[in-house]
Amino acid sequence: MRPEPAPTNTTEQRVDLVLARVLSKAASVPPRLADAMRYAVLGGGKRIRPRLVYASGRLAGAPIEVLDHAAAAVELIHAYSLIHDDLPAMDDDDLRRGRPTVHVAFDEATAILAGDALQALAFESACADGVEAAVSLRWVRLLARAAGAGGMVGGQVLDLEGETRRLSADELEQLHRKKTGALLHASVAMGAAAGNLPGGKADALDRFGTEIGLAFQIHDDVLDATIATEALGKRQGADADRGKSTYVTVLGLETARKEADRRMASALDELACFGTEAAELVELAKFIVSRRR
Amino acid sequence: MRPEPAPTNTTEQRVDLVLARVLSKAASVPPRLADAMRYAVLGGGKRIRPRLVYASGRLAGAPIEVLDHAAAAVELIHAYSLIHDDLPAMDDDDLRRGRPTVHVAFDEATAILAGDALQALAFESACADGVEAAVSLRWVRLLARAAGAGGMVGGQVLDLEGETRRLSADELEQLHRKKTGALLHASVAMGAAAGNLPGGKADALDRFGTEIGLAFQIHDDVLDATIATEALGKRQGADADRGKSTYVTVLGLETARKEADRRMASALDELACFGTEAAELVELAKFIVSRRR
Repeated sequence: MRPEPAPTNTTEQRVDLVLARVLSKAASVPPRLADAMRYAVLGGGKRIRPRLVYASGRLAGAPIEVLDHAAAAVELIHAYSLIHDDLPAMDDDDLRRGRPTVHVAFDEATAILAGDALQALAFESACADGVEAAVSLRWVRLLARAAGAGGMVGGQVLDLEGETRRLSADELEQLHRKKTGALLHASVAMGAAAGNLPGGKADALDRFGTEIGLAFQIHDDVLDATIATEALGKRQGADADRGKSTYVTVLGLETARKEADRRMASALDELACFGTEAAELVELAKFIVSRRR
Repeated sequence: MRPEPAPTNTTEQRVDLVLARVLSKAASVPPRLADAMRYAVLGGGKRIRPRLVYASGRLAGAPIEVLDHAAAAVELIHAYSLIHDDLPAMDDDDLRRGRPTVHVAFDEATAILAGDALQALAFESACADGVEAAVSLRWVRLLARAAGAGGMVGGQVLDLEGETRRLSADELEQLHRKKTGALLHASVAMGAAAGNLPGGKADALDRFGTEIGLAFQIHDDVLDATIATEALGKRQGADADRGKSTYVTVLGLETARKEADRRMASALDELACFGTEAAELVELAKFIVSRRR
């Protein structure tokens, strides 16, 4: 007897279907570019950002068909950022999720352009037919701020600067609030924006998004320092090898683990006001800091 | 006595002010990233795309303060595309408008990231406060399609493929409809979308946007083949040297000149239904195919 699929699998499969649909809708795309985009987006991953959109959006009472567009948008931004982060001029990684990175599987120009096209497609997805204009507008604003110079891109700049000098714990938090936290927070906020929550609960969900983003990154640094290359899908200790400041190199392994736990507890506290309705989001939060990539 | 500035100067100055304002509004941006973004965006250029937004928008009766946001958006997309096109993995140009390109003046990682951030900022600008939700939504859709895989990015992919084989005249038109034409067309369409034109005139303006885009590119190829490096701001014949197919290499210089004239006449025909009200757009169209960069 085959085991029942875990409840989260259903959402992962939905995300893959939604992403494949969005990618196939773009008309008149040169085949090599379309291939690189599909390779990057449909190459697996835990789909944490889309799952945050769905869980937060359902908690806010939003229809799942509307949430599909936001889920696709955040994952397309994530996928583009991975392609560009892996480039030779940046982190110079040739392995991602156990497969050659896009610039290795294709070439550097195609990788840069596939990333560029995925960012545009994310904004197109946020404005899809069937989404209220006011909701699309809030999504585009949230996404643009999270992805841009004050968010994810700014965080990557700080990350590269962190290779040349040791960052303080405060600087590291600032870096990760931008680089990883901004898009995770946007995922939660975009889900909430599609629904209709009273102000107090909306604020609590917003703070949850911030805390879970930090818990995620600290856990990621712990994983990078401790998990074998095969399980991780990239070289073990790759970040530390490059001289990058990570939570582990700055705080030490045990303190980093405790800090991840503290952020996680703080995130879950914010969900208390929802009672049992937040069960899906609680489960997802716990998955985030228990995952082995 | 100093000469009066030409009428077009006023719009150019407005564009610079609007762009500087948009760039300064982004909060908490790492200084090096902010510098690279400003270097790329405020480094001159004829601002043809914003000027198309203003001229088309005024013809459609849109307020200039609303058009500012669309004008900034199209120029930010244009600026990001130039940064990425100039990268070593793409056209590998070290000179742009007579100055070092961004990856030369800064470094390659900063250039990639500044381009990425400018794309996000373009979409943020299209959703600025003070623009009706329905207009912003049309702008984001127009911009995302023009910039993405079926538009500008797809055109750049075809352009790079054109270095390895000689393109036919039809393929060349397809390439330039995407690479240059899509964003020029979007500039005209975004201006029009902010106003209120009856269907027939809106369609004519839309076709004008398509034709002027092709006239622009053919003229650009003619310039590349004939103008000295100093006046051009980049190396003379740089495209042809790389073995790129251009309108000049495919059609010959004289036929390319005639084709630019034909497209220009076709563009102006579309404006006939507006009578003298289209004077600004007619003047701008003529400037586009007479310019010496």
